[in-house]
Amino acid sequence: MKRRTFISGAIASVISTNLSATSFVANEVKPFSNNKFRILALVFNDYETLDLHGPIEMLGHTNNSEIKLIGATDIVRSYQGTRVLTDLPLIVTECDLLIIPGGLGTRKELDSVILLDWLKRQTEVSTKVFSICTGSVLLAKAGILDGLKATINKLAYNWVTSVSDKVKWQAKARWVDDGKFLTSSGVSAGIDASLFFISQQFGLNEAERIERLAEYSWSSCSTNDPYSV
Amino acid sequence: MKRRTFISGAIASVISTNLSATSFVANEVKPFSNNKFRILALVFNDYETLDLHGPIEMLGHTNNSEIKLIGATDIVRSYQGTRVLTDLPLIVTECDLLIIPGGLGTRKELDSVILLDWLKRQTEVSTKVFSICTGSVLLAKAGILDGLKATINKLAYNWVTSVSDKVKWQAKARWVDDGKFLTSSGVSAGIDASLFFISQQFGLNEAERIERLAEYSWSSCSTNDPYSV
Repeated sequence: MKRRTFISGAIASVISTNLSATSFVANEVKPFSNNKFRILALVFNDYETLDLHGPIEMLGHTNNSEIKLIGATDIVRSYQGTRVLTDLPLIVTECDLLIIPGGLGTRKELDSVILLDWLKRQTEVSTKVFSICTGSVLLAKAGILDGLKATINKLAYNWVTSVSDKVKWQAKARWVDDGKFLTSSGVSAGIDASLFFISQQFGLNEAERIERLAEYSWSSCSTNDPYSV
Repeated sequence: MKRRTFISGAIASVISTNLSATSFVANEVKPFSNNKFRILALVFNDYETLDLHGPIEMLGHTNNSEIKLIGATDIVRSYQGTRVLTDLPLIVTECDLLIIPGGLGTRKELDSVILLDWLKRQTEVSTKVFSICTGSVLLAKAGILDGLKATINKLAYNWVTSVSDKVKWQAKARWVDDGKFLTSSGVSAGIDASLFFISQQFGLNEAERIERLAEYSWSSCSTNDPYSV
């Protein structure tokens, strides 16, 4: 696959006029290594810890994968208070899997023209897009899920579904896989959906190997949703 | 509870002679806020992502808790490649819960006199100590678990139990609670043990509230260990 790593002109110009407001810090841009399975995960302040790190745990054990965190600032704080360093600023860069976590921070990010614009552009150059919990509300607000089936954290179901009526929201699903888009239910459902993705991409044996390695009990049926609305 | 935050004299002197070898960077020391439930989590390079972030997810939703990461360097990289920022350097500071994750990095840390000395001193001023996965091998090597019941990642069982024969290793346990020490089985077992600790410390209702919030299916029986040796 041909690699492109570039700062989107439109986004860069928007960012340059908002430096003070967004406290944007330019990271040193290190693109993905060659011949890796390229996993890009968005982070923003008040993201939910397990939404991000559950999938990273499972996907990080696949052979030959490389994970990079991408965000508008060098340092991003989770809702639980711990801080991660981003590997890339909000550039648009080809990847094999784009991860969008949820969390209380999505309520603020929903109003970010920069982020929603980046999401649309980044989605175009991502082979697969995987949102966890309320991460799908960002995709929905950006119009990316229009006409598609998707799911969401069930505690936030009424709020999220009010943001867009163009998405075919699924009230009972641990995760929903609709072509390019994989969306999971709340928080820990992201772990189950990650193992589904691994089985889809790398085979069931690989998913089960990683399940055992993590001593996890995979809920491997997408319609088994104990928290359905 | 009286608060003490001090750099242990013995550790500080060891560190000063090993600056170049350990790339120790002095963080700005910000002690815990008043009247918080103080959770201190050790991080070291090649810690296992979910060992740390699973418990942080659950414990971070308890009311009035504050989580700080502590480590020998400002930036610590997980086995999966993502980087966290520590909040505290390796000082000894009172806390209500000390978290020790596992991961491949434990094999290197086992040889760190500094870390094992810190562990002994930090354990003395921690009300409860909670290790996940191979985290308990560090406690065992430091002699902290001598005579106590404990468990461990089952894939690493033979290696870990060879490090110390003074621990009453439990071959079948999702987690083991022996007085001050809570030790969990591999990786995702840390989430189940966290919910156990929450139920013990804050009540079953609180554990079940957080279980629902995270849309998790808590394996709430400590002897239900599908990965037992």
